[in-house]
Amino acid sequence: MTYAAPLDDMRFVLTHLAGLPEIATFPGFEDAEPELVEAVLIEANRFASEVLAPLNATGDRQGCRCADGHVATPDGFPAAYRQFIEAGWHAMPASPDIGGQGMPAVVSSAVAEMWKSANLAFSLCQMLTMGAVEALAHHASDELKQRFLPKMVAGEWTGTMNLTESQAGSDLSAVRTRAQPDGDRYRLFGSKIFITWGEHDVAENVIHLVLARLPDAPPGTRGISLFVAPKFLVNPDGSLGARNDLVCASIEHKLGIHGSPTAVMAYGEKAGAIAYLVGQPNRGLEYMFTMMNHARLNVGLEGVAVSEAAYQKAVEFARGRVQGKPIGGAERAPIIRHPDVRRMLMDMKARVEAMRALAYCTAACMDRAQRHPDPAVRARNQGRVELLTPVVKGWCTESSIMIASTGIQVHGGVGYVEETGAAQYLRDARITTIYEGTTGIQANDLIGRKLARDKGVNAGALIHDIEAELEALAPVNHPDLSAIRSALQAALNAFEEATAWMLSHYDNDPREAAAGAVPYLKLTGAVAGGWQMARAARIAHHLLANGEPNAAFLRAKITTARFYAEHVLPEAGVSRDEITMGTASTLALEDALF
Amino acid sequence: MTYAAPLDDMRFVLTHLAGLPEIATFPGFEDAEPELVEAVLIEANRFASEVLAPLNATGDRQGCRCADGHVATPDGFPAAYRQFIEAGWHAMPASPDIGGQGMPAVVSSAVAEMWKSANLAFSLCQMLTMGAVEALAHHASDELKQRFLPKMVAGEWTGTMNLTESQAGSDLSAVRTRAQPDGDRYRLFGSKIFITWGEHDVAENVIHLVLARLPDAPPGTRGISLFVAPKFLVNPDGSLGARNDLVCASIEHKLGIHGSPTAVMAYGEKAGAIAYLVGQPNRGLEYMFTMMNHARLNVGLEGVAVSEAAYQKAVEFARGRVQGKPIGGAERAPIIRHPDVRRMLMDMKARVEAMRALAYCTAACMDRAQRHPDPAVRARNQGRVELLTPVVKGWCTESSIMIASTGIQVHGGVGYVEETGAAQYLRDARITTIYEGTTGIQANDLIGRKLARDKGVNAGALIHDIEAELEALAPVNHPDLSAIRSALQAALNAFEEATAWMLSHYDNDPREAAAGAVPYLKLTGAVAGGWQMARAARIAHHLLANGEPNAAFLRAKITTARFYAEHVLPEAGVSRDEITMGTASTLALEDALF
Repeated sequence: MTYAAPLDDMRFVLTHLAGLPEIATFPGFEDAEPELVEAVLIEANRFASEVLAPLNATGDRQGCRCADGHVATPDGFPAAYRQFIEAGWHAMPASPDIGGQGMPAVVSSAVAEMWKSANLAFSLCQMLTMGAVEALAHHASDELKQRFLPKMVAGEWTGTMNLTESQAGSDLSAVRTRAQPDGDRYRLFGSKIFITWGEHDVAENVIHLVLARLPDAPPGTRGISLFVAPKFLVNPDGSLGARNDLVCASIEHKLGIHGSPTAVMAYGEKAGAIAYLVGQPNRGLEYMFTMMNHARLNVGLEGVAVSEAAYQKAVEFARGRVQGKPIGGAERAPIIRHPDVRRMLMDMKARVEAMRALAYCTAACMDRAQRHPDPAVRARNQGRVELLTPVVKGWCTESSIMIASTGIQVHGGVGYVEETGAAQYLRDARITTIYEGTTGIQANDLIGRKLARDKGVNAGALIHDIEAELEALAPVNHPDLSAIRSALQAALNAFEEATAWMLSHYDNDPREAAAGAVPYLKLTGAVAGGWQMARAARIAHHLLANGEPNAAFLRAKITTARFYAEHVLPEAGVSRDEITMGTASTLALEDALF
Repeated sequence: MTYAAPLDDMRFVLTHLAGLPEIATFPGFEDAEPELVEAVLIEANRFASEVLAPLNATGDRQGCRCADGHVATPDGFPAAYRQFIEAGWHAMPASPDIGGQGMPAVVSSAVAEMWKSANLAFSLCQMLTMGAVEALAHHASDELKQRFLPKMVAGEWTGTMNLTESQAGSDLSAVRTRAQPDGDRYRLFGSKIFITWGEHDVAENVIHLVLARLPDAPPGTRGISLFVAPKFLVNPDGSLGARNDLVCASIEHKLGIHGSPTAVMAYGEKAGAIAYLVGQPNRGLEYMFTMMNHARLNVGLEGVAVSEAAYQKAVEFARGRVQGKPIGGAERAPIIRHPDVRRMLMDMKARVEAMRALAYCTAACMDRAQRHPDPAVRARNQGRVELLTPVVKGWCTESSIMIASTGIQVHGGVGYVEETGAAQYLRDARITTIYEGTTGIQANDLIGRKLARDKGVNAGALIHDIEAELEALAPVNHPDLSAIRSALQAALNAFEEATAWMLSHYDNDPREAAAGAVPYLKLTGAVAGGWQMARAARIAHHLLANGEPNAAFLRAKITTARFYAEHVLPEAGVSRDEITMGTASTLALEDALF
């Protein structure tokens, strides 16, 4: 079996948790009616499972090769990319005004999850291109937009983000790449590292967005501007012109995502790479941040996607591998019958479903924030997006490492052999907590800009919604739902205590607050995921009572939610303790004593 | 910086926690007096850091190559191995009566930790050989012992364990390899997989211990016998004779431990591999189990060792990498000053120290069980060894995966680049929860043979000892020790509740008990590790009050123990909840609904 999209769960989350039926009524999203969305999901699943998934292991094994500035992606990648853009998948998430299909973010999230599950390395090309598209669409001049956007949206040209330099990683204030004015354009000089899909052979041009400093720029983050520098210059008629003075110096030898070329880019080894200023000088970081929510949500979805793929692989193995007699059984049986294997599979399944629900619901909040007719609802949803984006990014990716590791464990010794494919998920997942802002960066964003800055308004709104769910659960007479309710109540209490602690310490003990930031992020993820699982269970119970078809799926959802409540939600108490009791000991040791 | 053994912590654990001064008074351990042990530690550190550590990354990159049945280990491995045996390190852990140095297990554990930290792949060769030595020494005839043991103890010949077959992994009852009688010896036919150091170029002969079935053997685990089959037959004068009919068919392409050849061994492709029965027919599994405690403790030490190495690498990076201004700081500073980086490093440090303490103390219990003059003390310590061995194996290795992963995270993007070396620790660590019995197997052993079989006597003794520690802590007036005491009390309560649950469910609800087995193992590890950290903190406090030198180390120990109490011990509550509330939901889902 190759990857198959979890369509039942995707439909359930889209329809019953994320509110797609309502979102499809918003102006501009009218196309997202049920038949079309269903067709999109079916076709995306076909493409993901038939075209992308078969290239996942081979791409990992072969990797990318770099010679003389040229990068060859793995066999099959260029052809698959051609199919991908010809089928229109590349343009799907973009707005119709720039040539896209205008699907709600919640729908394109489900589709993106499929690409990422089937072939994470491949999927990064589109993701980066769409990030560049978004930055140009928001901030570039009409002339630049006309020159670059149509081909980028269509996927004929791909896009990159050039932020990192060897001395400037999480701290972009240290960027040194220089931009020298040259008439109405600029020449770039400098070196950028970790440039995803920075050079490749799947499309004819690569459009680099580059952070650099103008000669008179102030130091630090307020002196960074955003430039666009194409690999091949573009003639006025849109045809490709001369090769620009930028080159892929090498690619990294990485733990995972081997099919995704991670380039070291050298700008201006000759006369300088010709580049065009995007928007105003010195506002480059601000422009980068405008597309941060989408990009971070997307990386959070990578956590969901890799976890789902690892789960599917583990289930398949556990069904087929016969080993030992299960307790109480007389015959040797597939290991899925062994209690500890079930525990591992349930753990994977419950976490993946909670992560998916939270990620899609956050995408739905983006849609509401953008298109809901009521400005108050838009504002409320924007607040929720701001609060939950670092959580989706940080929590789903951190969880994915553990889930992929559990997937190996289900396989036993066979899982350690690379040909099995289980290990690739761990290697691939391992980057997701790092790029697009490490978990530490997400957590600082969460406790600072997202919690302390508004004095807990958005966190309070989340608490309010979870309390409403607890009230909705109260009258339901069902042992699973009662157990879920009581676990969610305990976890919410932990979240409230930690939130109060964080709000009272952020200004006065900023180092202690920062020491508790990642535990607070994990706590928020666990509780918000538990909230979604509780909603899911209550809704499934209701649908079952109404005789909805797909009863087996709905019963499984309730069981899975209960597992989550009893095995994952208790982690909220650990995080709370780490925050409210433990930050002093985090900081107490002298540097020299590590 | 390369690896350097954590000598201060090793000395502290050996002397103050594991009781080496007392152990050195036992008959047969008189050589283990302080000066000699100190010299051993110093020299082992030199060998580990100067000879083995420099080959760790190169061995990983180059891996092993197999052609025509020959296996070449990475460059430098054969020469290092030669140095290793010439310096006498190979024979060190063996008993003097078979040519070893008769060091207590607690001392050889510290030394083994160094080999494993410096180069896990290399260290496996000695470990497997010593396992084979132990099996032969206990069960083989004098003739076989004379033929094989001296060269194996010296490391001139290496040893292997051939257990697994493709259909017989955790379930050895499915072993199919056949042993055909041929005069006073046997001929083996069959295929074995996952044979660590099954073929290589570091020594002239490989002595394989092989599980196989005699023609008239009963089915299942009671029909498996143990054989010894050398790669080269041994002439009566001890010289090497003909090549035996056993060959390395291929080696595995693995996630990690690339420097350790993992062989598929084919026995009897011609007339059958000549082999000799070890001990009695049909008792092969029983013989394997006699060396299980040592082997499992050793793999637990691998968890400690890889974690220590990952920690050292992360600290080194965090001290050198300048990035961003820490909160409250005016200048860019090394990332070790950032609160979240400190949190990660403290988490690694605290867990490693707890794991080391527990592993060494368990080794010390082995020494007491073997050599203490009082039979009652021997019996009590044997019970403790039985109880804690699966915990050391399962908990230290499970923790090591997370710790090595955190090590990558400290490095940020650089950690994902293979040349950095942080990723190797995660890849290497990932096997440790699988081989020598998966965590699930350890946990079933723990709740069955180690807990339920004696109705909780040994677990009760552990609880008793932890209660005694709580009493010893009570009168100490020190805020760190008070915090530690209260966290340990809470964790002990969780352990007692879970133990009571497990004892009351094991017979009546065996599937539910098995579903809670791994959480119970983790809970036991967290609490027992916390107990050791509490002891360490109390003793450190006492030593400080007495004006002991090395005050900085002792203060760090107290701080680290408090971190452990506030960040790790709360996990006991999660495990307790998983056990006492959550096992039904683990088992509730129908197979088809995964």
